[in-house]
Amino acid sequence: MLTFHTADTQLRHPRSELHGGQLVTPFECPERVEIILARIRAAALGEVRDPERRGLAGVLEIHDAAYVEFLENLWDNWQAEGHGGEPIPSIWPARTLRGDRIPDNLEGRLGYYALAAETSVCAGTFRAALASKDIALAATDQVLAHGGGAFGLCRPPGHHAARDQFGGYCFFNNAAIAAQHARDHGVARVAILDVDFHHGNGTQEIFYTRDDVLFASIHGDPALEFPYYLGYADETGSGRGAGFTLNYPLPPGTGYPRWRQALEDALARIQTFGAELLIVSLGVDTFAQDPISSFTLESDDFSDYGGLLKRTGLPTVFLLEGGYAVEEIGVNVVNVLSGFDAG
Amino acid sequence: MLTFHTADTQLRHPRSELHGGQLVTPFECPERVEIILARIRAAALGEVRDPERRGLAGVLEIHDAAYVEFLENLWDNWQAEGHGGEPIPSIWPARTLRGDRIPDNLEGRLGYYALAAETSVCAGTFRAALASKDIALAATDQVLAHGGGAFGLCRPPGHHAARDQFGGYCFFNNAAIAAQHARDHGVARVAILDVDFHHGNGTQEIFYTRDDVLFASIHGDPALEFPYYLGYADETGSGRGAGFTLNYPLPPGTGYPRWRQALEDALARIQTFGAELLIVSLGVDTFAQDPISSFTLESDDFSDYGGLLKRTGLPTVFLLEGGYAVEEIGVNVVNVLSGFDAG
Ligand SMILES: [Zn+2]
Ligand SMILES: [Zn+2]
Repeated sequence: MLTFHTADTQLRHPRSELHGGQLVTPFECPERVEIILARIRAAALGEVRDPERRGLAGVLEIHDAAYVEFLENLWDNWQAEGHGGEPIPSIWPARTLRGDRIPDNLEGRLGYYALAAETSVCAGTFRAALASKDIALAATDQVLAHGGGAFGLCRPPGHHAARDQFGGYCFFNNAAIAAQHARDHGVARVAILDVDFHHGNGTQEIFYTRDDVLFASIHGDPALEFPYYLGYADETGSGRGAGFTLNYPLPPGTGYPRWRQALEDALARIQTFGAELLIVSLGVDTFAQDPISSFTLESDDFSDYGGLLKRTGLPTVFLLEGGYAVEEIGVNVVNVLSGFDAG
Repeated sequence: MLTFHTADTQLRHPRSELHGGQLVTPFECPERVEIILARIRAAALGEVRDPERRGLAGVLEIHDAAYVEFLENLWDNWQAEGHGGEPIPSIWPARTLRGDRIPDNLEGRLGYYALAAETSVCAGTFRAALASKDIALAATDQVLAHGGGAFGLCRPPGHHAARDQFGGYCFFNNAAIAAQHARDHGVARVAILDVDFHHGNGTQEIFYTRDDVLFASIHGDPALEFPYYLGYADETGSGRGAGFTLNYPLPPGTGYPRWRQALEDALARIQTFGAELLIVSLGVDTFAQDPISSFTLESDDFSDYGGLLKRTGLPTVFLLEGGYAVEEIGVNVVNVLSGFDAG
């Protein structure tokens, strides 16, 4: 399988993550990519190609223009104000405040455009997010042209990014941008399958009222796990999108048999939907040893479900999302991809 | 003038405030109270009395029971989870998430019940918040029984606390609790005048649909200043409360003449309203040297507007809110109170 990647993703290397009331070294770190690349080479998965660079192409089809402009200028504006730390929101349009006014103040805009505070911004974040998006587009073009599978080694990840909010380490929603790109190139029905441990709240929000992009997510029960306020089973889409969002919240300690059952159910729904393209939001934080998750998948399970995905017969774009057991992230990601190739 | 205070307010001494992307020593610190007490004694303002302690009395008339229970247990629950830092929310029910589900997870509930992340919680926060509330009740009872003025040297402050959210250093809304206490003791119409530099978003939210408590606030324009998402001039109350909320957002650099004009306008409206009791949310962060504010009042100006308040002829309860120019906070607070006494 072809992998798409560029070192520009490494421009994202913030130094702080708000975690348990402390500022710690971010879990979503550049080493994740290095370890996956090393494993791709060690396992001879296939060629690693640079994506074509496309500037903002694809971004504004999914994201709000003012949000994108905010992100582009955030670091410089923050530096100009002379803060000692990285941008982290400290107030937001809470339930008891207004959500219909965008303040002029930078901190006010930061809280408006953020949905979480663990995700600091650094000088290269915007460029890395564009590079990550280009990786997703290149992998999509590969699959649209040649069928089969392709892997977009994206970083930063995308599935928590909403139309006009960042958070959960995500800025641009790579999977959503890829899906829209496919729609704009003649694919009538796209399915996004989110197998990351965390609910893909951003992807769900973006397509919630649409019937041309099905969104299915298998994840830790949000009553107990990030992002807490979305991903419940009763969220099934609205308007034209009614029935085109599927959530499988699962309890802590969920192991592979139960997880696989949810996957089989989701794949059956995707087939019934008539998807012509499958986009997989590939997080491997379902792994038993992941430091911020609570499922118990083992490395072999990743190979197994890679094969299961292959059996859909659908052209399949894999886009990297989470996975924070850094030592094993390479093995687990490549197991999914090799399992697909062998399936 | 009598002052009410108890050292239990000093049980609140968190070590961290999220500020400019760093964890810094909180601006809202125990020293604020010590300096005000010292100045009260130096200026011979009057006796300082311990308030009667009343447990939860008054709290549930204003705040949501589940919120209060959450606050009561937050520190112990957080400690039980073994976090290294103090409770600081890192995700919340953002605009693109749901606000109608209260997660079971502690971090999820923390984000649900918070409106800002600068306000860490420490072991003694809940007890200090109760003490602060008792101070407000004691000052109110004093004025209800004897007229004139009384000062509640409250800490933590209260005006940012909403019915079920904390933030901006506030947990229980002392002014709102005092107003409701007065209503429950036969005062037909209460006016709350908020002269803190920051909009009293919590007080506004609590009384927004009521016509028996008028809320008037003079503050930094929220487009530019905390709390950013409330306090605009077009917020005037709703339902029965239409016309009973008055906001005077003023630009950075506002000096005393313009500020006094707003105060005179607010006092005229309070008189027209027919208030029988005036509660002043007394923040002195309007002071020129305040480190987190942008008005330019000088110490003499505080004396002047104390006299202006006296001229309403209304029984007046002063409750401490903000003020972070710690060296001068004593002089500025006592100037308002002495100005009232001399007015
Ligand atoms: Zn994840
Ligand atoms: Zn203030």
